[in-house]
Amino acid sequence: MPQTPPTRLTAPRTVRMHPDDNVAIVANDGGLPAGSLLPSGQILRDRVPQGHKVALVDLKQGAAVLRYGVPIGHALADIAAGSWVHERLLKLPPACGLEDLPMATLKPAALAPLQGFTFEGYRNADGSVGTRNILAITQTVQCVAGVTEFALQRIKAELLPMFPHVDDVVALAHSYGCGVAIDAPDASVPIRTLRNISLNPNFGGELMVISLGCEKLQPERLLPAGSMPLIDARQGAARPLDVLCLQDPAHVGFMSMIEAILRQAREHLQRLNQRRRETVPASELVVGLQCGGSDAFSGVTANPAVGFCSDLLVRAGASVMFSETTEVRDGIAHLTARASTPEVAQTMVREMAWYDAYLQRGQVDRSANTTPGNKMGGLSNIVEKALGSIVKSGSAAITGVLGPGEKLKTKGLTYAATPASDFICGTLQLAAGMNLHVFTTGRGTPYGLAAVPVIKVATRSELARRWHDLMDVNAGTIAEGSASIEDVGWELFRLLLDVASGRKKTWAEHWKLHNALVLFNPAPVT
Amino acid sequence: MPQTPPTRLTAPRTVRMHPDDNVAIVANDGGLPAGSLLPSGQILRDRVPQGHKVALVDLKQGAAVLRYGVPIGHALADIAAGSWVHERLLKLPPACGLEDLPMATLKPAALAPLQGFTFEGYRNADGSVGTRNILAITQTVQCVAGVTEFALQRIKAELLPMFPHVDDVVALAHSYGCGVAIDAPDASVPIRTLRNISLNPNFGGELMVISLGCEKLQPERLLPAGSMPLIDARQGAARPLDVLCLQDPAHVGFMSMIEAILRQAREHLQRLNQRRRETVPASELVVGLQCGGSDAFSGVTANPAVGFCSDLLVRAGASVMFSETTEVRDGIAHLTARASTPEVAQTMVREMAWYDAYLQRGQVDRSANTTPGNKMGGLSNIVEKALGSIVKSGSAAITGVLGPGEKLKTKGLTYAATPASDFICGTLQLAAGMNLHVFTTGRGTPYGLAAVPVIKVATRSELARRWHDLMDVNAGTIAEGSASIEDVGWELFRLLLDVASGRKKTWAEHWKLHNALVLFNPAPVT
Repeated sequence: MPQTPPTRLTAPRTVRMHPDDNVAIVANDGGLPAGSLLPSGQILRDRVPQGHKVALVDLKQGAAVLRYGVPIGHALADIAAGSWVHERLLKLPPACGLEDLPMATLKPAALAPLQGFTFEGYRNADGSVGTRNILAITQTVQCVAGVTEFALQRIKAELLPMFPHVDDVVALAHSYGCGVAIDAPDASVPIRTLRNISLNPNFGGELMVISLGCEKLQPERLLPAGSMPLIDARQGAARPLDVLCLQDPAHVGFMSMIEAILRQAREHLQRLNQRRRETVPASELVVGLQCGGSDAFSGVTANPAVGFCSDLLVRAGASVMFSETTEVRDGIAHLTARASTPEVAQTMVREMAWYDAYLQRGQVDRSANTTPGNKMGGLSNIVEKALGSIVKSGSAAITGVLGPGEKLKTKGLTYAATPASDFICGTLQLAAGMNLHVFTTGRGTPYGLAAVPVIKVATRSELARRWHDLMDVNAGTIAEGSASIEDVGWELFRLLLDVASGRKKTWAEHWKLHNALVLFNPAPVT
Repeated sequence: MPQTPPTRLTAPRTVRMHPDDNVAIVANDGGLPAGSLLPSGQILRDRVPQGHKVALVDLKQGAAVLRYGVPIGHALADIAAGSWVHERLLKLPPACGLEDLPMATLKPAALAPLQGFTFEGYRNADGSVGTRNILAITQTVQCVAGVTEFALQRIKAELLPMFPHVDDVVALAHSYGCGVAIDAPDASVPIRTLRNISLNPNFGGELMVISLGCEKLQPERLLPAGSMPLIDARQGAARPLDVLCLQDPAHVGFMSMIEAILRQAREHLQRLNQRRRETVPASELVVGLQCGGSDAFSGVTANPAVGFCSDLLVRAGASVMFSETTEVRDGIAHLTARASTPEVAQTMVREMAWYDAYLQRGQVDRSANTTPGNKMGGLSNIVEKALGSIVKSGSAAITGVLGPGEKLKTKGLTYAATPASDFICGTLQLAAGMNLHVFTTGRGTPYGLAAVPVIKVATRSELARRWHDLMDVNAGTIAEGSASIEDVGWELFRLLLDVASGRKKTWAEHWKLHNALVLFNPAPVT
């Protein structure tokens, strides 16, 4: 929240997040020169870039530097009031232990229900709802990606125009399926990820599988009988697995494979084309939250607005996921306290401990997370980044925890454990069943997904203006004082309903920009 | 080598690889029924599928089953002569230790030089030679992949037709660059892989880089000054790094990024378009060997022919790489013996030991390699698969060893350590500087690469007939007795020169089939 509303755009502006904070960040575009008089009365001793911290008091060597009311590090030297507090002046605190955490102690009051909000969605036989009507081509193994891509181009050119109620055809290419230690304990993660992506609600329960034949990830292993989508939920009837195997002796010559894939696609397109949107409650939204290319404003503007929107969604009965284990690790005590039960808190701690051990196997720790861009954007270390990141989760009780690649089955606010890598997190949230994606960015990224609309929220107005046809929401207005967190939270909530209904397209959809599916495979390759 | 030439196509045929072998494999398409009279005099007790093993003598429980003259396992029960020896009857031998191996003991006689063979290639300033003239678009991070793909489509449609001497434009998309533990010890592998792929000889030394701006893998880290390609080798002058950064404040709006990428591409295309093929010696070939979708014929037909061709290439002074650590692990004693020096043997052992430890961290071992298709194709376990796989390396002395992602700097036969995954191995061989790829397959895979021609060799005539427009060479003629290993080896050698010269295209090139670049990243993601 801005400390003082700006009198004019060039007046020095700073943002302090908590009354206990002994640093504030510079809000002005382009930063502030030395000698600037801050609203808090200090005179800047250094030039401080936008988003970077300035000391509000004299800090002795070893003193805790407080932001969000908590220590983000300790001063490595005496720092005079008005000085730039950059990463080289801060000692990273050790990771907080995973013992003796407050477990479900906060007991947040249940949020008041929010009723009457709906969107137009595609209802699936299993009860889930799609926001788009897409034919997905599941692939058991990377070997078939080239052939599938060839067929995809022909499907898009020759078939898709005949089926106007189908939004798109998407090839679910990936790097897994063979040349991997498929029986390693951790192989369950990539396998269930691929399975659950195929079952994403935006694919309407139409499973079309291309297999090579000799691969380790055989179709029946990817999609065992029990996982198949239902044709009719009441009857419990599932569709048989529709697999086209390139090594099938029936295929003589390349074009025989391609023609067979086109025939296979046509059948699924015909069924998808009969579907129509219907009015469904906002509780059918499954929203994945993520941030990427974060800066110091992420935790000041965009993420708090997303947090407010997250509370609106939870109040409306929807499902909301926040993720990125290394970016919540340093805020774990806040989160375990907010868990609805000690069991939920314990599951969250288990996911943190698993990731700690995973990183340790590679001889690194959670400090491997921050990027050069984070630091240029004012985030000194992973503690500061994490505190700004978890703000996305709003204030609701955390009622669920999901392992990487698992399918979400509960409403309310869930911690979906994933790496913080944008593409891996997005891929895992797709597997969880997300039908809408919110992505905040401070440095700017053109991120998109082929299967689910991605709504991008800029943390700064300068970015929103510069990338005017890539950013969907500008939360920079919050730092400028021209909008409140609540204003932007509501704007985002309404945009989610519009995009979910197909009334609006995101910029990533407009340009057809999308990133690759990137699997989280903690097991070895062979 | 076929034991007896076939009298007619339906006569039972078996293949025994070594005089000591107590099993042979069935060569007939479709296998042989019980009761068939084998050329060796036994009567089949079971129906035996093509490529599968039959016992030539009575085998007692615990007896060593010998193929290629070495034990591929031990009988788990008494096996009568004429019985099907399948994987469930075989106990996998323990991995041979990495101590006390024969080190450079074999001292293969230097092969007679093969002179006078040339091809038409594109000579680069650093002395290397391309077999194609391709503009590659290097990307520091997956974040930019969507924007780059958008630009690529416009470059192909609007610019490429104006530059007729340029073969193609290829986007080097990958999953690395951010969200990874970039300072982990093992992160050097993916980073050098990406660097060296950009420097592949088929890209003519034209480095065009798209960066986001805030990513961990900054352009200068991907391509430090010392790694830049030379404009003029004698003057030692290197081109400056040509980076387009999407977060550059100069780009206002999406189309400004796209137009800037097109301008950047045009400059590189103009220079590439001035290049012409010239006659160069066959010693400028850098050939990567690989197999995928192997069957029991891989080690009988295609791989021995490739091994003969490998010897021809070494004799002609070319560079040849064989790879796939888990597929040579069980043949390591043969390979260390064939090393040219104890140091080369020792380096090979170090790569094996590193991979053993890597697999162990994931709680698996080299037996994780074999696939359902391998087993259906008659390969009972990784020992049998490995013995058939290393035949690709021919008989020359092994004079070099390369770590994963490293750039090859020597001629002759090199063991380039890579995982056996087709796409990862191919990606690492691209990084090593391969300008031609030979890929053998028994089950059949439509594998291809965008940057380098892939010549696919079928192990069986049935596959070569069925996939007549995907397989480039049929080595199945060897099992049929209609061609010798030498015949097919020479056929492949001549085809390599034709394809390298652009006189012939591979089927994968014809259909523009290619697989994704898949990095080997043994370090954690964050």
